[in-house]
Amino acid sequence: MLNITLPDGSVRQFVDGATGYDVAAGISEGLARNALGVRVNGEVRDLHRPIEHDAQVAILTWNDPEGKSTFWHSSAHLMAEALEALYPGVKLGIGPSIENGFYYDIDLGEGRSISTDDLPAVEKKMLELAKNKSQYQRREVSKADAIAYFTEKQDPYKLDLLERLEDGSITFYTQGDFTDLCRGPHIPDTSPIKAVKLLNVAGAYWRGDEKNKQLTRIYGITFPKAKELTEYLEKLEEAKRRDHRKLGKELELFAFSEKVGAGLPLWLPKGTALRERLEQFLRRAQVKAGYSPVVTPHIGSKELYVTSGHYEKYGADSFQPIKTPNPGEEFFLKPMNCPHHCEIYKTKPRSYRDLPVRLAEFGTVYRYEQSGELHGLTRVRGFTQDDAHIFCRPDQVKEEFMKVIDIVLYVLRALDFPDFTAQISLRDPENKTKYIGTDENWAKAEQAIIEAATEKGLNTVTELGEAAFYGPKLDFMVRDALGRKWQLGTIQVDYNLPERFDLEYVAPDNSRQRPVMIHRAPFGSLERFVAVLIEHCAGNFPLWLSPEQFAVLPISEKYHDYAQQVYDSLVQAELRGTVDHRDEKIGRKIRDAEVSKIPYMLIVGEKEQAEGVVSVRRHGQGDVGSMPIAEFIRSFQQQVQEMMDGKSV
Amino acid sequence: MLNITLPDGSVRQFVDGATGYDVAAGISEGLARNALGVRVNGEVRDLHRPIEHDAQVAILTWNDPEGKSTFWHSSAHLMAEALEALYPGVKLGIGPSIENGFYYDIDLGEGRSISTDDLPAVEKKMLELAKNKSQYQRREVSKADAIAYFTEKQDPYKLDLLERLEDGSITFYTQGDFTDLCRGPHIPDTSPIKAVKLLNVAGAYWRGDEKNKQLTRIYGITFPKAKELTEYLEKLEEAKRRDHRKLGKELELFAFSEKVGAGLPLWLPKGTALRERLEQFLRRAQVKAGYSPVVTPHIGSKELYVTSGHYEKYGADSFQPIKTPNPGEEFFLKPMNCPHHCEIYKTKPRSYRDLPVRLAEFGTVYRYEQSGELHGLTRVRGFTQDDAHIFCRPDQVKEEFMKVIDIVLYVLRALDFPDFTAQISLRDPENKTKYIGTDENWAKAEQAIIEAATEKGLNTVTELGEAAFYGPKLDFMVRDALGRKWQLGTIQVDYNLPERFDLEYVAPDNSRQRPVMIHRAPFGSLERFVAVLIEHCAGNFPLWLSPEQFAVLPISEKYHDYAQQVYDSLVQAELRGTVDHRDEKIGRKIRDAEVSKIPYMLIVGEKEQAEGVVSVRRHGQGDVGSMPIAEFIRSFQQQVQEMMDGKSV
Repeated sequence: MLNITLPDGSVRQFVDGATGYDVAAGISEGLARNALGVRVNGEVRDLHRPIEHDAQVAILTWNDPEGKSTFWHSSAHLMAEALEALYPGVKLGIGPSIENGFYYDIDLGEGRSISTDDLPAVEKKMLELAKNKSQYQRREVSKADAIAYFTEKQDPYKLDLLERLEDGSITFYTQGDFTDLCRGPHIPDTSPIKAVKLLNVAGAYWRGDEKNKQLTRIYGITFPKAKELTEYLEKLEEAKRRDHRKLGKELELFAFSEKVGAGLPLWLPKGTALRERLEQFLRRAQVKAGYSPVVTPHIGSKELYVTSGHYEKYGADSFQPIKTPNPGEEFFLKPMNCPHHCEIYKTKPRSYRDLPVRLAEFGTVYRYEQSGELHGLTRVRGFTQDDAHIFCRPDQVKEEFMKVIDIVLYVLRALDFPDFTAQISLRDPENKTKYIGTDENWAKAEQAIIEAATEKGLNTVTELGEAAFYGPKLDFMVRDALGRKWQLGTIQVDYNLPERFDLEYVAPDNSRQRPVMIHRAPFGSLERFVAVLIEHCAGNFPLWLSPEQFAVLPISEKYHDYAQQVYDSLVQAELRGTVDHRDEKIGRKIRDAEVSKIPYMLIVGEKEQAEGVVSVRRHGQGDVGSMPIAEFIRSFQQQVQEMMDGKSV
Repeated sequence: MLNITLPDGSVRQFVDGATGYDVAAGISEGLARNALGVRVNGEVRDLHRPIEHDAQVAILTWNDPEGKSTFWHSSAHLMAEALEALYPGVKLGIGPSIENGFYYDIDLGEGRSISTDDLPAVEKKMLELAKNKSQYQRREVSKADAIAYFTEKQDPYKLDLLERLEDGSITFYTQGDFTDLCRGPHIPDTSPIKAVKLLNVAGAYWRGDEKNKQLTRIYGITFPKAKELTEYLEKLEEAKRRDHRKLGKELELFAFSEKVGAGLPLWLPKGTALRERLEQFLRRAQVKAGYSPVVTPHIGSKELYVTSGHYEKYGADSFQPIKTPNPGEEFFLKPMNCPHHCEIYKTKPRSYRDLPVRLAEFGTVYRYEQSGELHGLTRVRGFTQDDAHIFCRPDQVKEEFMKVIDIVLYVLRALDFPDFTAQISLRDPENKTKYIGTDENWAKAEQAIIEAATEKGLNTVTELGEAAFYGPKLDFMVRDALGRKWQLGTIQVDYNLPERFDLEYVAPDNSRQRPVMIHRAPFGSLERFVAVLIEHCAGNFPLWLSPEQFAVLPISEKYHDYAQQVYDSLVQAELRGTVDHRDEKIGRKIRDAEVSKIPYMLIVGEKEQAEGVVSVRRHGQGDVGSMPIAEFIRSFQQQVQEMMDGKSV
């Protein structure tokens, strides 16, 4: 008999040779119907493969990430089957599942090509074949047989793959008329594949090497329900509309210049207004929370990074050192702010009474990324961290964590990100030797983080073994309006740098002790945060962040002077906006302002001028009545204050 | 007869062979008495040397910079005479006048040395010799005679100097028993040297080359009146007390770290508070004046600097390029912000209606300086310019200049620098070819600057030939509280970069035109400005800039809670300060706060706690009565606002 331990810890017995399907059926008929694969002692396998020994077993469905990836891997085989039917003689490279869907690299041979226009026919064929309910059949083959098979099929890519495989480890999978060299696993049969969308055609070098032949890569995604595909495609469209690179350009927030360099954003006036507001917002909150802003240079000498340990990690794939006329002198662009802050800590002796010392800096750092990896503001070569380093006593870690959590919650509330979890990364308890710092301090810090998160009522997930070698941490995983997950705020304990920089404080007994260091960044970086924010709110920023908060719209040229006067009053009150001086009808001006997502339109004509008022129109809401300029300013400022306090958004 | 044209334009006739002294005597007996030298057609000469031809002549006295430098040069000879008397056989290097006084490099020979303790005896000897009223006698000598003289005297340094001189151009000056190889000119005789102070002894390599022997350099200064020396020494003492490097350390404003690198300041919390206030103050003024803040990276690709022309000027004495893993790719630390701003200008088409575009950035730039040239915050390797670039039409230059002048005046007023002149640097009208840009545009821009300065009522000095090759400029030369001159705000027209970056705007006739670019920085750089400000106000910053604006002083431990409550209210209102929790008598706490130059001391004890008030003490003024916390905050904020508006300091 087999002893099968289920995820809930219960143990069930099955006859020898039982499969994942038998286990699923033993649990419920519905589970057996929806099962796509099985995880046996951590390994994902075919549902119908016998389980050889007693094991931990979990049934995988569409709701499990491994269920989805198995489904998509099988869909890649289905697409290959359809392609062989439609393009006889097609040669096949590799066809894996990816984060969203799958692809297959194919070679149609001289003179044949495929474009997006051809994809609907492939989709149709796939759905047709899926209905056959063909089983995915696994078969172990000898290397010689495998080579014979693909030699006959004249497929150079599979033969190339086979060359690198060892005899005895080779399996084939067959569904319908199609057989592939494949490690598996797969779903039981093609029938659950109910909805197919082939998304894109691209070029891809065989084995990713540009010296090899370029194959055609077809991307696709499949679902067990048509409705899920529709929703996915709608989300994809919405994500495209919200793409921060597109909105950043349309709203004139930032730009890139080839001459300045790839991955080095130029913040345009409107983007700078947004960025400065964010900075100012956090700076004020931090000063009130006892942080001390500091300013440090963007370079540091080699010595600094030898001390911090970064020099060893600087390799050929980073920005190279900056030499000077003085032989042997070398500087580096700073990849982080912590070494500079350690040097500030060391500028004077510190007593236990002085701690915590909280040094904050909006510090711009530079890290080299391959140009192919750059992406808008989310992957850049220069970015500004909303960085701070807290130097505290071991007994202060919990309280400091709670205070940092307060700041992160304040930020998320004011910026309308209600959906997040806190991921706590702890040591691998099985492998304590790979971490720096005493056992006692680790235990204390981990306990402090867990308690702080719990007392703050955070929804937490704990990951063992995910801590950095120098300390445990807490990350805020935030879901945006499209349900996508982003890692934003980070709070990280560090036992390493205080050691390397020989940081000290004088304890009550006059002994010299090491402070604990906490790195933290509620936004992460301004660049990445602004990118997420743009996509989260689709460019409709909260009023206080809006780069153009108002547009004064004179009804005709006669009121340009009054319009200017209104504008001047608002600018003196530090509101940001414009006057629409164009010779256009007022209807057109309103329409254009609505399209530009300007929160307030202030219409001025004869009546407004005579009474010294403005007619106010709110974006997306319409008319809200007329009021004196001073009253508009007051109400505007009050709204902004409430938003920044997180009371309304 | 000689026709002598005097500085006022009048022409007088003198007999052939007349000297400067004769001209002075012809003007007034007093002038003749005070005359130290004479300028003949731009050349400074001995007063008693005959004037050979008709000439422009000006008599030089102590009030002229050339009068002072001649006086000090002659004082160097006097010191050499005294040294020869006291240290027979001393060898002499060079002995020029400098900005304040003079020095002489001497070699006392094996086994002899001189220290500051020995200087009073030299001073005494100098004054003794000065009373002899020895004339400084000029004599032309042949090279052979000169060599013979110094060979006999066994002076290797003078012989080394002589080697490089051509026969026919060599002169000796003799006063008393002392003869020196010297080009002159000198004052008539030693009698005006009435006050002497030898300041310092230092080492100096012969010819500034460390491969040569190190000589002893003695610095000194002399005056025609004892009172002037006393005043000078007092000012020197005061300047030492105010030295920004000393105060910067004492007040914990900034620090340097060897590991970060020389010349790269770390702004400590208090210095950052000061710096951020300055930034914020100017940022607000600029936004209200129509500037658009932008943010650009601290590096730029080689291409950017090839375009700007800086690449050609980048030499072996700069920070070297930053290479990357991508062969051929090179970046530079940005030495200025203008190229980046030009690229922002180019991100979209501009119409004549869009101009002026005013892009502002507190941009940190990096320029390599030899470590020996670094000096506190005034000479650094990384500094933040309060930079902006105005892109405007040629017809807008005057108005833009006036607006920039307004901002500079606002800054100088709010920071209490009442004493300044505007130096206008124009083209050399004799040599127009060395300038870029059309004649018409230059004429227009120069006219615009002059008119703008005049209309703003500035006290101006015009310098021909001092313009940069790319445009005329205006500099604010500011005198600090010690009467020292600093160049602060700069406004510079630029015809070069718009050309190199091919900047354009569409004119009303649809033609494409070049905008004019104006660089401007009211502070110059934050680092240098803060250094000047520290020395100007001796660390007693205006209230709104003060890094520590208040100290709450509880009378005893019983009132620590109430003190903390007062502190919290003030911090929430964005005031900066501390609580003095020490177990000290209140008198001591007040004394310490006064020494730390903290503007407001808030004393709290039983009465204050019971009534919810604070007893307010103003730095340097004493008690100003008790008031509720909210009232103190209101009055404080009102004072700050008035100061920032330049209404009071």
